[in-house]
Amino acid sequence: MMNDDLSSFFVILVEPKYAGNIGAVARVMANFNIKNLFLVNPCELNDESYIRAKHAYKILDDAELFPSFKEAVENIDYLVATSSIVHKKDKKHLRNPVYIGDFSKKIFEIKGKIGLVFGREDYGLYNSEIAECDIMVKIPTSESYPSLNLSHAVCLVLFHLFVEKDFLPDKRREIGKIEKDKLYEFFLELLGTIDYPVHRRENTFIMLKRILGRAMLSKWEYHTLMGVINACIDKINENKK
Amino acid sequence: MMNDDLSSFFVILVEPKYAGNIGAVARVMANFNIKNLFLVNPCELNDESYIRAKHAYKILDDAELFPSFKEAVENIDYLVATSSIVHKKDKKHLRNPVYIGDFSKKIFEIKGKIGLVFGREDYGLYNSEIAECDIMVKIPTSESYPSLNLSHAVCLVLFHLFVEKDFLPDKRREIGKIEKDKLYEFFLELLGTIDYPVHRRENTFIMLKRILGRAMLSKWEYHTLMGVINACIDKINENKK
Repeated sequence: MMNDDLSSFFVILVEPKYAGNIGAVARVMANFNIKNLFLVNPCELNDESYIRAKHAYKILDDAELFPSFKEAVENIDYLVATSSIVHKKDKKHLRNPVYIGDFSKKIFEIKGKIGLVFGREDYGLYNSEIAECDIMVKIPTSESYPSLNLSHAVCLVLFHLFVEKDFLPDKRREIGKIEKDKLYEFFLELLGTIDYPVHRRENTFIMLKRILGRAMLSKWEYHTLMGVINACIDKINENKK
Repeated sequence: MMNDDLSSFFVILVEPKYAGNIGAVARVMANFNIKNLFLVNPCELNDESYIRAKHAYKILDDAELFPSFKEAVENIDYLVATSSIVHKKDKKHLRNPVYIGDFSKKIFEIKGKIGLVFGREDYGLYNSEIAECDIMVKIPTSESYPSLNLSHAVCLVLFHLFVEKDFLPDKRREIGKIEKDKLYEFFLELLGTIDYPVHRRENTFIMLKRILGRAMLSKWEYHTLMGVINACIDKINENKK
């Protein structure tokens, strides 16, 4: 199944203060096929949590609670601290971060349980907690308002994992070279049929190639477009008779 | 300044139902340096909106309200529909989507005002609204729970724009709404001229709109394409005489 490898990821929320945020995190976990939620000394879950979790209520039900960060991460093999803020005053070695886009390309090389650690809504992670982690991942944000909502931070990290793992390998059905060549050939024929100036044909042809290259046609679009060009050519030839 | 180019982006929420969501959207807009918020027939803003917006309250204060989608997008040059769900039953031409990662690499080539359109929490966008848009962007999500929270969808789209903006390629001069409409009009005329089956015209027309929306034509490409279509129409009419 699709989400096989994402089962090794654990979302760890450290002392979340707002019950609604925890629900929103559960929902976005389900959106990206990640099921394991660890809560370190959280606020009480309430109705708001379940309303925000929507269909992902099972992730809330199954969430594991821990009294301390230390206990939560005891059996995790690789710990990832996350932050959108990198305090200038912090010691460099503690926060020297990896860009989230680079992180998601590499993390699948890691074996074992991987903990994605998200800090408190108001304070983030303590330096002692960051020091426990194997890597610090940075989510780039505005300098004028860097602090992301907790569930937004989780959303961005999980999205990157989901896309790298499940989506990118076969993301679209584009037409192949044979279809493309045939389409170009038809277009050249059309230019001939309408007596398009000979000295401009090559440029116009290359332009079309560029346009269609950017548009990345699906098979269905290809066939429809072929139909239209064909109809033009037929119509002109028919009238010529 | 960093956010110079992001000022051409407009977040357009269509009939949002939950006041808290609108606040969360405002916050994440500030996190990614995007300031223009359009609200189409929204629920009332309330305390929850402002609590969730946090330091981004000014974006809420400055949000523009519109009674209808049509009025909101009147002065927008390029419209981007967003969705995490692509209904299998939907007509292919309406929803044939571009992956968000590809979209964000190309969108900065567009000149003019760009509207990022997000649908209702429960229903998304109507097909008639999607048909108005130049491009449909897909946010990949789990097949078992594809529906993202509204502010999470906005978060992912804006993050991509924010991150991509730093790696801008050379910009081309993109055509505006007037040129686009003229091109579409010509194409419809061509379909008429070649006696294209009436019941298939609308689908084929919307397909072309999507293809050209993804291709993001330069002025030069626009004029050349207009020339080719025009020559086809002339040739057929001339032969008919």
